[in-house]
This record gives sequence, C-alpha cells and structure tokens, in this order.
Amino acid sequence: MVFSLTILGCSSAMPSPGRFSTAQVLNVLERFFLIDCGEGTQIQLKRFHIKFTRINHVFISHLHGDHFLGIFGFISSLSLNNRKLPLHIYGPFRLKELIDMFISTMEKGIGFDIIFHPLHYQGNELIFEDDKLTVESFPLRHRVPTCGFIFREKPKLRHLRSLIIKELNIPIRLLQSIKEGEDFYDEDGKMHPNHTLTKEASPARSYAFVSDTAKNPGIVPFIKGVDLLYHEATFSDEGKKRAKETGHSTARQAAEIANRAGVKKLIIGHFSHRYKSLETLLNEAREEFPNTELAIDGIVFDIKEG
Amino acid sequence: MVFSLTILGCSSAMPSPGRFSTAQVLNVLERFFLIDCGEGTQIQLKRFHIKFTRINHVFISHLHGDHFLGIFGFISSLSLNNRKLPLHIYGPFRLKELIDMFISTMEKGIGFDIIFHPLHYQGNELIFEDDKLTVESFPLRHRVPTCGFIFREKPKLRHLRSLIIKELNIPIRLLQSIKEGEDFYDEDGKMHPNHTLTKEASPARSYAFVSDTAKNPGIVPFIKGVDLLYHEATFSDEGKKRAKETGHSTARQAAEIANRAGVKKLIIGHFSHRYKSLETLLNEAREEFPNTELAIDGIVFDIKEG
Repeated sequence: MVFSLTILGCSSAMPSPGRFSTAQVLNVLERFFLIDCGEGTQIQLKRFHIKFTRINHVFISHLHGDHFLGIFGFISSLSLNNRKLPLHIYGPFRLKELIDMFISTMEKGIGFDIIFHPLHYQGNELIFEDDKLTVESFPLRHRVPTCGFIFREKPKLRHLRSLIIKELNIPIRLLQSIKEGEDFYDEDGKMHPNHTLTKEASPARSYAFVSDTAKNPGIVPFIKGVDLLYHEATFSDEGKKRAKETGHSTARQAAEIANRAGVKKLIIGHFSHRYKSLETLLNEAREEFPNTELAIDGIVFDIKEG
Repeated sequence: MVFSLTILGCSSAMPSPGRFSTAQVLNVLERFFLIDCGEGTQIQLKRFHIKFTRINHVFISHLHGDHFLGIFGFISSLSLNNRKLPLHIYGPFRLKELIDMFISTMEKGIGFDIIFHPLHYQGNELIFEDDKLTVESFPLRHRVPTCGFIFREKPKLRHLRSLIIKELNIPIRLLQSIKEGEDFYDEDGKMHPNHTLTKEASPARSYAFVSDTAKNPGIVPFIKGVDLLYHEATFSDEGKKRAKETGHSTARQAAEIANRAGVKKLIIGHFSHRYKSLETLLNEAREEFPNTELAIDGIVFDIKEG
C-alpha cells in the first residue's frame, strides 16, 4: 500500500532555474494531499503526471507567496476540467479572502465547492481524519503565522496467519475481530490466543512537513520518530545569520532537529536561489544526520510498508 | 537598434507540457515591456535570462487567470530584489483590487510604488508615450472586457549623409534640425536642400498583440500594416464551433485577419492543450497567410531596422 511523497518544487522565495516554489504531493493509500502550492504547481503536477482530479485536500502552511500563489491557477484549471467534487483547503483565513476575490472575477465562478478550514496556528491541532489517516498541524517559528503538518496512518490491523485460520476453520465473520486482537474459541470451547492466529500489524507510517521556520527545538515532540521528515534548509552554514534574521533554518539546523526527533529519514528543501549547487548544504546536513536527502523537483520518496 | 519580442508562454487556459500561459516581453530600444503575465512568468523570465529589473511596464489584456496570475509572484520577487523604481501596470481595474489585497497580506508590503493605469476597453486609447514609442489599446471580442495592444516606434530622424556634411562643414548645432528635415544655407547664402544632406529615415517599427478574441474584422483598421502581429489561435479548423462558443479564434481566422490587415508577419499562439502537435494549426494558417510562425516558449522574433 503506497505512502509516497513527490516534491513538486524546492526553491525558497524566488524560483530558481530548475527549482519551482514549494509544493509537494503526498499519496497515502491513493488519497492525494497537496502540501503548499507555490506558483506553477499545476505545471509541475502535469509534468510529473499527477492527475489534478485526484487531489481533494490542499494544506497551505502560511501566507507567503512562494507557498500559495499556485492555488488560483490550480482552482481555475480544476474548474475548466469540470470538477464537481468539493475541494478542501486548510490554511490561513486571509487565503480564503484572496480565493473568494479571485473567484469573484471569474464570469461564471467555479463549478465546485471549496470547503475552507481555517488554521489557528496555536498548538497541535487535528485538522483531518478519515478511516486510515490523520493530519495534524503544529506551529513553527517564522515571520508570519506558519505551521507544519504531520500525516499519520492510523494503527493497522494485525496480519492473519492464514494456515492456522484455515486449519481451525474460523468463520469469515470473526476474522475482523481477530485482526483487531480478539482470541478465538473453537467448538470444543478451547481458547486460541490471538498471537497464535495473527502476526504483528505493519507499523503505521508517518510524514512530517516542516515549512518555513527558524530553528525550533519546540517542534521535536510533535515530529518525534516520524518515518520521513521534510525540513526547510534555506541556507548553508555561511548563511546562519541571514537564516536567523529571516526566520529560516540552515541545512545543519534542520539535521540537528531530525537528530533530536529521532526520525528515520530527512529531506531538506526550500533552498535559497543563491545556491547553484546544493552539495555543501547536503554535506553539512549529513554531518549531523547521515540519512539526509535533497528535495529535487520531481523526486519521489516512498515509505515501504512493514 | 533592437525591437524584439520574446515569447514566454503560448498556452491557452491551462498550461500544457512545454507551454506556459500567455506572457511576452517586447524589447524596444532596451525598454522592456511585459505583455500579459500568466502563471510562471517569473520562472520563464529567469529561464530566458531577462532581468526583472529592466521591466518597468506591464500590460494585462484581460482578467482571465492564464493572462494575469503571474503578476503576484513577479511583484513579490521584484520586492525581494529590492526594487525601488515604480512599476507601471496597465490593466482592468479589478486587477488593482487583487494586487492591493495581495500586497496587504505581505507583512512589510513592497518597497516600490505600483502606478496602476486602468484600461477602459472602449475604442482605441493611447495608454503610453515616451520620446521613442507609443502604446495603444484597442478592444477585442471575448467573454470579458479584453483589449489588444499596439507598440509603435515614433517616426525617426533622417540619416545624415556624412561626407557632404563634412564637406560643407555644417556646425554640429544644426545637425538635429537637418535630421528633422531642414535645408541648409551656407556662408554664401546658397541653399542645400535637405534631400542632398540626408537619406530617408528608417521606417518606424510596430508590433500588435491580439490577445483572446473571437474572429473580429473590426480590429483590422487598428493593426493595419504592422510589422509583426501576434494573434491568438486557440483552435484548428475542427474546433471552429468551440472557438466561437468560447470567444476564441482558429489559426485560419487569425491568418485571415493578418491577411486583411496586410501585416508583414504573423505569429500564432494561445494554443489549446488538446493539440500536442501544432503542425495542423500552422498549416491552416499558412494556407491563408504564408508568413506565419508558431509562438514557442523562448522563441525570439526580431524586427530589424531599416
């Protein structure tokens, strides 16, 4: 079952040659979540063959242009594609005003509903939940209210040991409860403990998106142990002062956070256009946290099951 | 002296692989004019090495997203680049509201002035003039108020015949008036008629941008005889009905207009994403007007002097 992240853009502030502004798509079990939506997101979605129609939820971390300016073209193209399903957008309230004003300029409006979920930017908030997944937001430390997002699979059911299930001839109607951990009593009243009937459930997978932020150890409890962490890394060591001034992080600081949070893998992105090559940033991050990779437009990170 | 057009995007409505939304840069004697500003314009400017800072005037033909959604990112990047010079924007009044609202979301606003020139969409209007150039707008026939733009060099000065000027020892202070067509009286009172002192001025060059429009012979008087005409050509012959319904033109209709207006060269663009190959559109246009070329992202059309 798929749990994969596609980077659509990895540039900070201004797009750089080969790097669009921030946008990502997370595919969790064929649910597609768009995370931030910088200018040109729809161009990147086409380029990387991700169907617009599959995206029902958009999460916008904060109201800086490089994180949301693609939303208007995306909405417009959805409408031209005759979308009927509602689109859920999670973001700062003023974004709703901008979207409403944009739609009011369209002579026929749009043919689908936008359900806007304003974010509050205070503490940890559960902002989405379905049968398989939750999404939470948590506050970051930037120049304007900004949050990160964590996508977590819900705890999964235990795997049946099919041979013993067959041998005991357990009725199908009981299998769900056995997957949930129940024991089984056979016709003779003999109890078969659950661990003899099932194997451990696959671990629930998780992805944390840390958008623009100054170094902030306060986020460690929220992102503790995630399988995959994206953390902005706008500058290299030489830009540390500038990072502090602008509410951003260096690659090394991102890696220090990854380290403290004990995550499994780190992706760094949101690179300043001053860096033509990203080798220095990657090396600095890997000195602190070896399992670091660079965000690159179009790259896909898979988290395998089990 | 340069008079050249760079196509930044040539797609209609939705961007297509390899084709961004409408945007063009006209360089007239090192004055850079941005014409329409679809999503991703700043990305294309960078890609084609056109310095943002050189653009002081932006012309927006109408309020459809694929013609203006790049303006926000462009403004934002100008501000990040510490622009101080004012930026002139010519477009529909509601665009000003959108821009104002966008800027109001920026924590520090922007560091330069935007001077907004609302267009009236009624008849032919002189909207810009300096010592070398005029820009006029003229109305098109689309679903919302839409106009085209004509850029014309002002009539130029005659070229001095340097040998005779030297021979007659004409004082430098008189050269300007001679270039303007004055005759010259030497010390003996002998009149030297201007045509013996000068050669014909280079013809003033002109470019007409015809944005989204249904076929509209009403524009012919405005664009008569221009050196270069860009005309939208969203559909091929098979899409003629759809063109009419949506207020667009076919490639053949664009060429018919070029023909009637006796322009020197036609560029067609604003292609529907349904056309992977543009060969059919080009062929249909060339049947009516042979000197037709396709708009392609990054292509440059030069109009030579003289």
